Amino acid sequence: MKLQESQISDFNKKGSEEHQNQFDFLANTLDKSGVNTKNVINALAKFQVAIPSWALGAGGTRFGRFSFYGEPSNLTQKLDDVGLLHSLTQTAGAVSLHIPWDIPEDYNAIKEQANSLNLKFDAVNSNTFQDQKNAKESYKYGSLSNTSQAVREQAIAHNQEVIKIGEKLGSKSLTVWLADGSNFPGQNNFQTALSNTENSLKAIYKTLPDDWKLFIEYKPYEPNFYSTVIQDWGTSFMLANACGDKAYTLVDLGHHLPNTNIEQIVSTLMLKGKLGGFHFNDSKYGDDDVTVGSIKPYALFLIFNELVYGMQNNPQNPDLSWMIDASHNIKDPLEDLIQSLEAIQEAYAKALLVDQNLLKEAQSANDVVACQEILQKAYRTDVRPLLAQARLQSGGALNPLALYRELQIRATLIQERGKHSMASGL
Amino acid sequence: MKLQESQISDFNKKGSEEHQNQFDFLANTLDKSGVNTKNVINALAKFQVAIPSWALGAGGTRFGRFSFYGEPSNLTQKLDDVGLLHSLTQTAGAVSLHIPWDIPEDYNAIKEQANSLNLKFDAVNSNTFQDQKNAKESYKYGSLSNTSQAVREQAIAHNQEVIKIGEKLGSKSLTVWLADGSNFPGQNNFQTALSNTENSLKAIYKTLPDDWKLFIEYKPYEPNFYSTVIQDWGTSFMLANACGDKAYTLVDLGHHLPNTNIEQIVSTLMLKGKLGGFHFNDSKYGDDDVTVGSIKPYALFLIFNELVYGMQNNPQNPDLSWMIDASHNIKDPLEDLIQSLEAIQEAYAKALLVDQNLLKEAQSANDVVACQEILQKAYRTDVRPLLAQARLQSGGALNPLALYRELQIRATLIQERGKHSMASGL
Amino acid sequence: MKLQESQISDFNKKGSEEHQNQFDFLANTLDKSGVNTKNVINALAKFQVAIPSWALGAGGTRFGRFSFYGEPSNLTQKLDDVGLLHSLTQTAGAVSLHIPWDIPEDYNAIKEQANSLNLKFDAVNSNTFQDQKNAKESYKYGSLSNTSQAVREQAIAHNQEVIKIGEKLGSKSLTVWLADGSNFPGQNNFQTALSNTENSLKAIYKTLPDDWKLFIEYKPYEPNFYSTVIQDWGTSFMLANACGDKAYTLVDLGHHLPNTNIEQIVSTLMLKGKLGGFHFNDSKYGDDDVTVGSIKPYALFLIFNELVYGMQNNPQNPDLSWMIDASHNIKDPLEDLIQSLEAIQEAYAKALLVDQNLLKEAQSANDVVACQEILQKAYRTDVRPLLAQARLQSGGALNPLALYRELQIRATLIQERGKHSMASGL
Amino acid sequence: MKLQESQISDFNKKGSEEHQNQFDFLANTLDKSGVNTKNVINALAKFQVAIPSWALGAGGTRFGRFSFYGEPSNLTQKLDDVGLLHSLTQTAGAVSLHIPWDIPEDYNAIKEQANSLNLKFDAVNSNTFQDQKNAKESYKYGSLSNTSQAVREQAIAHNQEVIKIGEKLGSKSLTVWLADGSNFPGQNNFQTALSNTENSLKAIYKTLPDDWKLFIEYKPYEPNFYSTVIQDWGTSFMLANACGDKAYTLVDLGHHLPNTNIEQIVSTLMLKGKLGGFHFNDSKYGDDDVTVGSIKPYALFLIFNELVYGMQNNPQNPDLSWMIDASHNIKDPLEDLIQSLEAIQEAYAKALLVDQNLLKEAQSANDVVACQEILQKAYRTDVRPLLAQARLQSGGALNPLALYRELQIRATLIQERGKHSMASGL
Repeated sequence: MKLQESQISDFNKKGSEEHQNQFDFLANTLDKSGVNTKNVINALAKFQVAIPSWALGAGGTRFGRFSFYGEPSNLTQKLDDVGLLHSLTQTAGAVSLHIPWDIPEDYNAIKEQANSLNLKFDAVNSNTFQDQKNAKESYKYGSLSNTSQAVREQAIAHNQEVIKIGEKLGSKSLTVWLADGSNFPGQNNFQTALSNTENSLKAIYKTLPDDWKLFIEYKPYEPNFYSTVIQDWGTSFMLANACGDKAYTLVDLGHHLPNTNIEQIVSTLMLKGKLGGFHFNDSKYGDDDVTVGSIKPYALFLIFNELVYGMQNNPQNPDLSWMIDASHNIKDPLEDLIQSLEAIQEAYAKALLVDQNLLKEAQSANDVVACQEILQKAYRTDVRPLLAQARLQSGGALNPLALYRELQIRATLIQERGKHSMASGL
Repeated sequence: MKLQESQISDFNKKGSEEHQNQFDFLANTLDKSGVNTKNVINALAKFQVAIPSWALGAGGTRFGRFSFYGEPSNLTQKLDDVGLLHSLTQTAGAVSLHIPWDIPEDYNAIKEQANSLNLKFDAVNSNTFQDQKNAKESYKYGSLSNTSQAVREQAIAHNQEVIKIGEKLGSKSLTVWLADGSNFPGQNNFQTALSNTENSLKAIYKTLPDDWKLFIEYKPYEPNFYSTVIQDWGTSFMLANACGDKAYTLVDLGHHLPNTNIEQIVSTLMLKGKLGGFHFNDSKYGDDDVTVGSIKPYALFLIFNELVYGMQNNPQNPDLSWMIDASHNIKDPLEDLIQSLEAIQEAYAKALLVDQNLLKEAQSANDVVACQEILQKAYRTDVRPLLAQARLQSGGALNPLALYRELQIRATLIQERGKHSMASGL
Repeated sequence: MKLQESQISDFNKKGSEEHQNQFDFLANTLDKSGVNTKNVINALAKFQVAIPSWALGAGGTRFGRFSFYGEPSNLTQKLDDVGLLHSLTQTAGAVSLHIPWDIPEDYNAIKEQANSLNLKFDAVNSNTFQDQKNAKESYKYGSLSNTSQAVREQAIAHNQEVIKIGEKLGSKSLTVWLADGSNFPGQNNFQTALSNTENSLKAIYKTLPDDWKLFIEYKPYEPNFYSTVIQDWGTSFMLANACGDKAYTLVDLGHHLPNTNIEQIVSTLMLKGKLGGFHFNDSKYGDDDVTVGSIKPYALFLIFNELVYGMQNNPQNPDLSWMIDASHNIKDPLEDLIQSLEAIQEAYAKALLVDQNLLKEAQSANDVVACQEILQKAYRTDVRPLLAQARLQSGGALNPLALYRELQIRATLIQERGKHSMASGL
Repeated sequence: MKLQESQISDFNKKGSEEHQNQFDFLANTLDKSGVNTKNVINALAKFQVAIPSWALGAGGTRFGRFSFYGEPSNLTQKLDDVGLLHSLTQTAGAVSLHIPWDIPEDYNAIKEQANSLNLKFDAVNSNTFQDQKNAKESYKYGSLSNTSQAVREQAIAHNQEVIKIGEKLGSKSLTVWLADGSNFPGQNNFQTALSNTENSLKAIYKTLPDDWKLFIEYKPYEPNFYSTVIQDWGTSFMLANACGDKAYTLVDLGHHLPNTNIEQIVSTLMLKGKLGGFHFNDSKYGDDDVTVGSIKPYALFLIFNELVYGMQNNPQNPDLSWMIDASHNIKDPLEDLIQSLEAIQEAYAKALLVDQNLLKEAQSANDVVACQEILQKAYRTDVRPLLAQARLQSGGALNPLALYRELQIRATLIQERGKHSMASGL
């Protein structure tokens, strides 16, 4: 299924006048307060977030999974889904493949399809947290950190294979998320596990093409419940430094202990030029992987405030790879992603409204009350008209979710794919 | 120091046109979407939050306290400060006394002063977590829960005394916050401590006037670091039930373990008709007592969503006592309170915008995406014009903080009181 | 596979002398310090913990499951496994069935088998957190709390069916664990969900036989990640009170927010006569379900200290149902259970060593240092000889794990059942 | 007050026979299982922990402080207290001074006193979290990170002064704990604060004598409640690397977010040769600073397991500075410290019992069950006879707490110092 431009423009016509009113009024207010609204709109229009190929189906928990109908059952259908999302939102212009779940059968066909949908291939992701059928070695006790050289070599080779697949598609980065760790005190020798991991990452890094980046993700726990080899940003940063200039830390919002100040981590990494990628989701308890912005939207704004600051002030840090890394347990995955994309754009827009000069002054003067006011002024602004305007400008829908429902897209997908189609992935 | 009405009206004139524009545009938008804006404004204007008498000076931590200049050094000056706050915001129309810090010397004078400042006396608070000079018994090992009958009796008598003081002022409720608990496993027999507490509360309850309420606060830890006798809402609720119909649970936002779903607690208590009071603050780690809305504004909104729902649907629950219970470690206490009051009103306003009928429908249909959209629609609305309008309507300042600074109120207070005046309290 | 008594007694002979030395020395020391060692041994020998029928296979996480070989693939084989455990440890004299995973086909055969293995049927467990094949209604959006009456009725009927199955086997209690809750703010009306749950529980309670108990479990999150209908002990306690005298709260160690003081909850519930059951496991982060005692053995001891106190001082509280509720992701399930049983007995033994009279005195005198010393004295004692003696007395193995390995039980099971047999369950 | 050797030896005589029995039996058992008990005893006897000069008086919380009688009111009396502790335990052979609380008036006298008491001067500690009387600049908004150069320079100069004081006493290291951070989002520019801190530390480092070490402590929150400049080990490690070879990370047990795997941090730092110091205490909720081993003794053992491993396998890491950093809110400080020292020695002794060779084998074989058994075997051993034996060998008391009470040391101190003497500090 593919949207026609006319479907979008017809829809937009209906809300056009109301939108124009809202937008004009807000733009006028913002411009008077010193904001360059046009620049904000352009920044929003440019901002693109990758959708992972495994996120188009229903997720689940260890207690089970309630399936969703009309899931894409192959890579082509997954690209179609991302294409739909991108048509509606103009914010999902990239896809991030997980290997081996989504190895293309016909690279040219897949590239052409992506091209026609205006999608790029962002970071490719390896998987060494599950055993694949007929695999010689098992990752039950770890992959890159395993005490067995044979297992480590299999995991290294897999990552190198993933790079090769990515190269064929035009990807420029590899994301390594390791589930490695231990469930019980004593199970792992921490130093051996860390040293093995460092050596394995270096072996992968060695085969990384010159224009590629290696992203090293961290996570404090789950699926291991006592320790994780790369438990925090400090460990990831240390490993990235050990690998070399093309290695970076990747921050996933859900991968932190309770109460962690994530925005400070982001800021430190950008200062050091070592933040490579960013995974969006939200959570109340652990790595809950729920819709972006559904639980702690102010924290998301504060993080974006640091990201924007870094993008404007830290040339030492490269452009970031953005990806949604959420799980859709009870919502239609496409609706869930639309909500996530909206929340991301909202936080970004608000961060762009922060008056950085005033803030710097207030900070220098230790005017704590004013510092807070400056951030809150930006945050309290209703930026929905800006988001709609940016979409409009790019050919997207004024209200993506409303159009998605009006066009009964899920029903059409079910018709096309059958009720019980099932996406590969978790 | 007392504000002249003209000082406020002159200030308001300057911003009047811009405000009117913003308000009219928003009101128009809201009315079209089915909101009765006038009712919202009226509800906001009616909403009053008590300021505790100890919150007008600088707070501190166990590592020290950085003093603030021009603190009120007696009850009269404290009432003056609350009066200033109320003039500016029209939201702080009550004061909550802490005994023995703020025992009036001349009840009539104090009542007249409060009256002239348009302030009511809300709940009175007892203090059994510190030893007063010349006290016969020490609370080092607990008060209402102490193993020593003499200590328990002293603590009961103190609470009864606080009630009498409150009666003279027109208060209608007593808030009991117990620091009782233990620092080490084994220190307390949990059952003895709980039974003692229940009996002590019953003894206090016995002397409670018919038209009074008893609020039982809970807190999981601090100042005790292993256990607290009333550690959670369940314990408070159980004790309130044991005392009788006039006993209620009091919820303080900061008194919860990490990740607690506080809005659900609020909802449960209102369903059971047992939520009596509510203390506002915000926190990232523990009972940090920072400015309301400065850390988790969306959580505050969700809580208000339940409070509004309860106020509209739970006649079994009485009107609530609202109080700010924050500590002002590095901000001017009055500026801090202005920011807190604004954040409270903001959350309340947004909760009032939630379309409860649509929400009920979406909930019944398990349309999870729509449920989220409905809450987010209300939350994303920029309600600052509504707050300003409500203040305007009541004679407050369009922008209380700006006026506070323009009038250089703190400088005046320092002149009046001297730099090193110091407020009683923590 | 079934162990011969001679296999155990032969094994014990080898270690007998060394054990006798250790035991005599310890018993002598304890007796001198006022402990009645014989009574302790008898209490340990009497203490029996139920094994849930789903815990004999490999567990997993949402990221996958690494299978274990020789798993029991039907109820008969599961009982065999529990029988093996019980032969070795003499502590696992009960089994707790999960329905519909383990509905007996031939009740008489199953009862005879259990009898021959010396096993009782403890609490039966219902399952309304997954959809069964061909189920008319789905639990995707809740079961007993669902907004749809049809779903609630299906869930009620299922629980009533589980009671009937339990009756045929001689069970005397039903454990209800509800996954009901919500993933997003707004999804649930908390009050509706709670009221529905209360009414559904009452409907189940109505059909409860006179000599049965209803256990209501609580859990703050997972599989739902925003709210759980029965989120804490307070809610469970409230519901149990609403149901009646035969309804009780069930505490699962892993079902608490970070840093919760669980021993205090246990103590409160026993004081009120409302603690019905207890589920053992351990965790560092969330409901990790790892081996009992592997992470926080001192916390387990402190909990047992309250349990022992309650068993000795709270006749108002019934005998408790004990069950291991852990997941065996990377260990042989039987070895894991042996380690868990050992840790439970260890904590129980140490709690039995606490000098309750001395403790009461020290508590009354607020001698905090002495209180701690009394608990630590018991905890620091090496009680392994007591556990071995209790097993010896009951016909179990001096060292169950060593014998399990010496007899190569897993290898035998694999031979009997095949490598890829798989247990029903999660 | 000073203990006579005869007071200790007389006391020891009374318990000597019973101790000898217990020790011989245990030593015999351990030796049979391959432990070199003599080496363990020697290691225990050698292990010395510094007592901070501020820990001899009562601590408190922001809610108040309950004073303790007979507190040392000057440095001489504080050394006397540490001397008493060391006489009794033979484990407290060092003192760690906090400046400016404890600047010696007569260096020679203090050094002679320390010498006569067998005490060394361990790390000196600076204090830039409080304003001293007559200080020119205030640390209200930070010290080494402050936006004001004048404040930073004052803080740097203070640290340099502390080094000079330390040099006169024979200290060889400086511990920097920064309270710097922010209470509200926006208050600090994270990058400016971090860069300022790095530069300030480098300025201090520059004046560090060649044979000195600089310890950089980290802490996630408190006294600031939104952010701390050095929030975690990663930040400290980064700063230590930026300073140079003589700069190290210092780990304080209480300075971590909930559920942090501290033992892994210790292990990583030792692998990298960057763990310099270690502060002991215990906690359930935050930086509770309660008696070592009173809440999570198994976690302490696991940490010691990594420390022992590092001391045996990481020559790249220097000898560690050990200090107790607890607060004595309700216990006699000396009794509290005796309990802490006992708990430290206990954890150390058990870690020394771990069979590292067997553990390595089990880890290589991924025998998770065996790994756990090996750690638990060591942990479950009752090592109190080993601790007593080590003390006996060094001239300490068999049971320091019992002797402390028998000699009525506190009563004597109160007689000597008066009831209301008060220690400087928090």
